Amino acid sequence: MGFSGSTEGGHLTPADIEPLARGCAILGAGGGGEVMAGISAATEAIRDFGPVPLVPLADVPGDGLVMPLAEIGAPTLPGTPTTGGLEGGADPVLVRDEVERVLGRPVTAVMPSEIGGSNGVLPVAWAARLGLPLVDADAMGRAFPEAQMVSFHVANRPVTVAVLADARGNIATVRPVDGPWSERIARAVCVAMGSSALMADYVMPAARVRGAVIEGSVTRALAIGHAIGRAAATAADPVAALQRVLGATRLIIGRVVDLDRHTGGGFVGGGLTIDGVDVDEGRLLRVELRNENLVAFEDDEVRAVVPDLITIVDTLTATAISVESLRHGQRVCVLGWPCDPLWRTEHGLAVAGPRAFGYDLDYVPVEEIPPPRQRP
Amino acid sequence: MGFSGSTEGGHLTPADIEPLARGCAILGAGGGGEVMAGISAATEAIRDFGPVPLVPLADVPGDGLVMPLAEIGAPTLPGTPTTGGLEGGADPVLVRDEVERVLGRPVTAVMPSEIGGSNGVLPVAWAARLGLPLVDADAMGRAFPEAQMVSFHVANRPVTVAVLADARGNIATVRPVDGPWSERIARAVCVAMGSSALMADYVMPAARVRGAVIEGSVTRALAIGHAIGRAAATAADPVAALQRVLGATRLIIGRVVDLDRHTGGGFVGGGLTIDGVDVDEGRLLRVELRNENLVAFEDDEVRAVVPDLITIVDTLTATAISVESLRHGQRVCVLGWPCDPLWRTEHGLAVAGPRAFGYDLDYVPVEEIPPPRQRP
Repeated sequence: MGFSGSTEGGHLTPADIEPLARGCAILGAGGGGEVMAGISAATEAIRDFGPVPLVPLADVPGDGLVMPLAEIGAPTLPGTPTTGGLEGGADPVLVRDEVERVLGRPVTAVMPSEIGGSNGVLPVAWAARLGLPLVDADAMGRAFPEAQMVSFHVANRPVTVAVLADARGNIATVRPVDGPWSERIARAVCVAMGSSALMADYVMPAARVRGAVIEGSVTRALAIGHAIGRAAATAADPVAALQRVLGATRLIIGRVVDLDRHTGGGFVGGGLTIDGVDVDEGRLLRVELRNENLVAFEDDEVRAVVPDLITIVDTLTATAISVESLRHGQRVCVLGWPCDPLWRTEHGLAVAGPRAFGYDLDYVPVEEIPPPRQRP
Repeated sequence: MGFSGSTEGGHLTPADIEPLARGCAILGAGGGGEVMAGISAATEAIRDFGPVPLVPLADVPGDGLVMPLAEIGAPTLPGTPTTGGLEGGADPVLVRDEVERVLGRPVTAVMPSEIGGSNGVLPVAWAARLGLPLVDADAMGRAFPEAQMVSFHVANRPVTVAVLADARGNIATVRPVDGPWSERIARAVCVAMGSSALMADYVMPAARVRGAVIEGSVTRALAIGHAIGRAAATAADPVAALQRVLGATRLIIGRVVDLDRHTGGGFVGGGLTIDGVDVDEGRLLRVELRNENLVAFEDDEVRAVVPDLITIVDTLTATAISVESLRHGQRVCVLGWPCDPLWRTEHGLAVAGPRAFGYDLDYVPVEEIPPPRQRP
């Protein structure tokens, strides 16, 4: 039996994984890793270890340690084998044991560090494997490319320790002086580990987690996935259904005509151009990315910009297309919608606004950007 | 009062530091870091915290933890500020505390990981700062560029943990699956920390250290330094005195005429050519390096090759010239002499022989290589 939709005493079962993955792919804004590997890993782990309790943060005792987990590394470009998931990935037991050794007390619950992409789905597998509940929250409300781009950092919680492990069994523990140094050292460790590592950071008692995360993220991803699924099942327009549940603006419908991606330093960078079709005939939208979609430009005007979310979906199925899965000629719809209010604060924008990504742009909320002028 | 030369109950005092540094520079084979920063750091630390007991390994209780320490990173090329030493470098207390936390017991003594270069001198400063004795041994008997090129590895002792710290206070702990993974991950951490980090690895009880290190290294460095100093004081030939104490072959006397060094990936690579003068007029010797001097070629014939030691010294003072201090036009003498027998074993050569550095050469002991043919 699938998850009821209420977080009260609910358990995640195999039936929940596919809608969860659909929702996480949308929230990934192009990044967070391909969800396919996450689907099989989570499904198998629930089969092997039993359903995973999904608990609101309020239900975790204040002194219970919450362990955020994510795979970090460059998303895998076409042609490179993926190591995602429980089979090929690092053993979460190594990370949990090291965290407990370092902090000297047991971990009470797992939390997704980022709800976007496979990193929203894999925590179900890790929680099942560890026999721990999953907290219905995350630290991004989406996916972001850098480890310090988390709500914990915005809320001034220190990274006291970051633990990384790889599939071979190497473990590295970083005690950084601050968040940016944590990101810098952890990223170097990740690259040395072959550009894929399982990482726990910002591990702290639930009482300190409160007010420093985005709550309800897992439930939200499930709701998004169910909305798309229901629309597809009832022959309704899945993209329209998705727009409604997200409160999203359609930035363009068109075809991918230009695609430039490169991997380096643990990131995928580059961009793509979408040539409008149908109602958007004659328009061109350029999307720039760094693991995630960051900015959508049209005629040098910004249509949407990080930290707001930009997701490219298949026009027929409303399935999210990750940066790894983009192909020339794909028929896509680009959606932009508001990020969590946390990212729109002064500190939130300093951590993950346009300038944090090197863009000399002021942030304007996507819903306040006027639509493009009608062409004559 | 200076160190007596006997390891029985001796203490290292400020008077020992300069001869120790001279000897370590010679044993560095061009690498191990400039000794100047080490001299001031060790002298100041002894002044602040008192003389450092130098103890033979046999005097450390079998269950006492021995902590090998070294600065890792690329030697600093001319023009870059050095961070070596106690003032600018990482605090050894951070590393010691982390090691004790990870291993759950106190550290009994410090040991130089490599006796070559500043890494042979700085452990005196670290031991003084920590209030611990210094073990008269090291894990190389020289300097080597990679962390797995140590006697511990040759003796099949596992790297259970490596702890790194930088001058800012960042700490990283690596629990690798083996020595090469330790080197790979630790090197990446070091580069992320700004290419300079203090590292402890192969920390183990003295009983396990026995048979896995080169004993008497500190005493040997002191003896080398004193031999050079005595020759200089008595107007004898310091290079001849140095050759005698090392059992070294003079490979060439000449001038540096070609010099190509570059820093990348945490290493200094490149090479230099020496144009013979006086008795060596008409000869050319090419020395290739990777942090340390690795091979000396003459007319495509090997004159000396790693793991044997190749050190370039000033012809007048017999002062070692590190890879960072090489300059065009310097008048130098190149010496080659036998490494510790440990490196000449099959396993020793596999770890640090010519092929470990990418040379398709069989190792021939330096003393078995015939001198160059006399020219007509």
